[in-house]
Amino acid sequence: MLFVEVLTRVLGEGQLTVIDASGRPHRIEGARPGPSVTMRVHDRWTGLRLAVRPRLALGEAYMDGRVTIEAGGDIYDLLDLIGRNMQALDATPMVRWSYALQRWLRAVEHYNPIGKAQKNVAHHYDLKDQLYDFFLDRDRQYSCAYFRTGDESLEEAQLDKKRHIAAKLLLEPGQRVLDIGSGWGGMALFLSQQFGVDTTGVTLSASQHAVASRRALEGGLADRVRFKLLDYRQETGRYDRIVSVGMFEHVGSAHYVEFFTKVKDLLTEDGVMLLHSIGRMEPPGGTNTWLRKYIFPGGYTPALSEVLAAIEKVGLWVADIEVLRLHYAETLRHWRLRFLANREQIKQIAGYDDRFCRMWEFYLAGCEVAFRYMNQMVFQIQLARRQDAVPLTRDYVIDAEGGLHRPRSMAAE
Amino acid sequence: MLFVEVLTRVLGEGQLTVIDASGRPHRIEGARPGPSVTMRVHDRWTGLRLAVRPRLALGEAYMDGRVTIEAGGDIYDLLDLIGRNMQALDATPMVRWSYALQRWLRAVEHYNPIGKAQKNVAHHYDLKDQLYDFFLDRDRQYSCAYFRTGDESLEEAQLDKKRHIAAKLLLEPGQRVLDIGSGWGGMALFLSQQFGVDTTGVTLSASQHAVASRRALEGGLADRVRFKLLDYRQETGRYDRIVSVGMFEHVGSAHYVEFFTKVKDLLTEDGVMLLHSIGRMEPPGGTNTWLRKYIFPGGYTPALSEVLAAIEKVGLWVADIEVLRLHYAETLRHWRLRFLANREQIKQIAGYDDRFCRMWEFYLAGCEVAFRYMNQMVFQIQLARRQDAVPLTRDYVIDAEGGLHRPRSMAAE
Repeated sequence: MLFVEVLTRVLGEGQLTVIDASGRPHRIEGARPGPSVTMRVHDRWTGLRLAVRPRLALGEAYMDGRVTIEAGGDIYDLLDLIGRNMQALDATPMVRWSYALQRWLRAVEHYNPIGKAQKNVAHHYDLKDQLYDFFLDRDRQYSCAYFRTGDESLEEAQLDKKRHIAAKLLLEPGQRVLDIGSGWGGMALFLSQQFGVDTTGVTLSASQHAVASRRALEGGLADRVRFKLLDYRQETGRYDRIVSVGMFEHVGSAHYVEFFTKVKDLLTEDGVMLLHSIGRMEPPGGTNTWLRKYIFPGGYTPALSEVLAAIEKVGLWVADIEVLRLHYAETLRHWRLRFLANREQIKQIAGYDDRFCRMWEFYLAGCEVAFRYMNQMVFQIQLARRQDAVPLTRDYVIDAEGGLHRPRSMAAE
Repeated sequence: MLFVEVLTRVLGEGQLTVIDASGRPHRIEGARPGPSVTMRVHDRWTGLRLAVRPRLALGEAYMDGRVTIEAGGDIYDLLDLIGRNMQALDATPMVRWSYALQRWLRAVEHYNPIGKAQKNVAHHYDLKDQLYDFFLDRDRQYSCAYFRTGDESLEEAQLDKKRHIAAKLLLEPGQRVLDIGSGWGGMALFLSQQFGVDTTGVTLSASQHAVASRRALEGGLADRVRFKLLDYRQETGRYDRIVSVGMFEHVGSAHYVEFFTKVKDLLTEDGVMLLHSIGRMEPPGGTNTWLRKYIFPGGYTPALSEVLAAIEKVGLWVADIEVLRLHYAETLRHWRLRFLANREQIKQIAGYDDRFCRMWEFYLAGCEVAFRYMNQMVFQIQLARRQDAVPLTRDYVIDAEGGLHRPRSMAAE
């Protein structure tokens, strides 16, 4: 079995048993101890595809029930085992070659005009509304939370994320704030409610727009918060503050200069922007094929060097860059555990089938592993038109968050 | 006068009077009010050079007494006036074209093998030892200070810089620390004395090495701090922490991958590095010609995108990036005022002539203006081999510095 042969060469840690289509087990042992997982590959064709195009084939086979986990946990545990061994896998010539090809195709793939952007967004964010209630926090923050200690509930960590971002925005009552990619409105509503600012949110998802607008009305904030169903490139006017959380992943690398040019146009002379996005701590390259096909069409995870090159070209000041490591792994763990706990309700109430649930489980588990073992991270870039638009030191961030009497951060060891 | 014609087109703010070789004044008025300066150009040839190659010619003419300031202050005030109008100047086609050419020549210029690096360092850092005492702080910190309020003395701000960097290094007693570009030893001595770590400093300057070694002996720290006269590329071994302050500017862009590869090799598995360097908040490009010719041969100011591209290639984790804006303008102001106050002593005791003093004054004034009005800044990049080598949040930095009872940071307004 070719798939087994490839894995035998790269498994450095843990133990994997693969049961092939004829029922024969193949045991692969890493040199170092680690988790032990048994998977079954139900047909020969799947076995071949796993060897040739593993990144796409494993997710598809799991969705279709052609790969199942027989012992040692569930799909997360299989992906966790693969994640631990990923560095060795990435070094194999076949995998390296496929990366080079992907990079070459990237510019074409990432052409993302206004109409296409809308379709890509609908694919993911216009899913049945109840689905998100079954795994997100109550405010439906669909982006990386901020874990100050690592022990918080998801609700607390998402609230801390909003506070952390608000601190970096240096808000004052009456300021005009633009939220690019405003989702279900949680961030915009929070900023207006807590800081007395006037917020405009733009989103391309019709169902998110409807939910957010209803929340503004019900919360009595409709005079201070409005949501528009609009591509950010069509927005005009000037804003004191701009925030964008978890939207930049959909912009596409060919459009970064366009994005920051628009941001510069929309910012007042002493304006400040906070950009929160997933990034990769490695050279620019392709995004996982399975993820682009099934979950985020048009999605692309930038390297910091790419983002900064675009900002330098446009001529904005980078005032600060925070790299949030592991926070998204924790967030995704919370989401996956909630999703699994609500699986039956998702099928009965939201009306999704088993294949959809396996697809979603694979997505959440795969992303968690990518943030835990590979080079995925989240960055927050604070931008301004003038270098003196934010204070000289970063002390004000902690200060705005309530100082050090709050729980201390998790130690590295 | 061609020089006057160019300036007439770009002066948007303030007023400049140029007295030409025949004694005739040319008055150039900006549309907006601002400082007013009168300069004299003593011969026609200088007038022509100022128009064609202003960045090199102005400094040379000032050094040689062929440009003098007649009213409205001194050379700083002239450069300040130019700095305020720099954005318009940069947009003229002639200046843009010269930038493109410089970029093209960069890779050749920046070839910096070990022998050449040593010569470049000697040019600047092996100047007569007393010179630095006449403008630096007592600890001879020859890099950007950290102004928490903006009202501190230079001594306080340099101490805060060392504290700030130490906080990001997460030091523990007994750790092995490497200081790449250790200068006169101030940082290495501070870290060992305050945190009980074992520090090795490497420098290419013979006179810095002698001073630093003497300080370690005299301070009774010779068992915990050692200095080597060595190119960092020749250093071997493993270090828990690496710090490099104000040395990366001499590495040269063609050698960034080599630099970070060496850093990775020298770091332990859970090691942390703090890189402090001047950067430019604009696309990669050439460094000021006059500065490279007279002050820092081999010097190059990187854009963040270049530095990050190299780090991504090498495969280190960026844990944090702080962009220190305006701090170096303040630092340079302190240095220039001290230099001017000690000018007679510099000539009498250190034995430098008027031309050298004008050169040095031009260097300090020009750099201050570049940090105040143009796109120069200082970045601190925290690097690690493992993403969990530093805590999840940045709260520990403030914590290690003594918390918020210390003076609050300067507000933007």
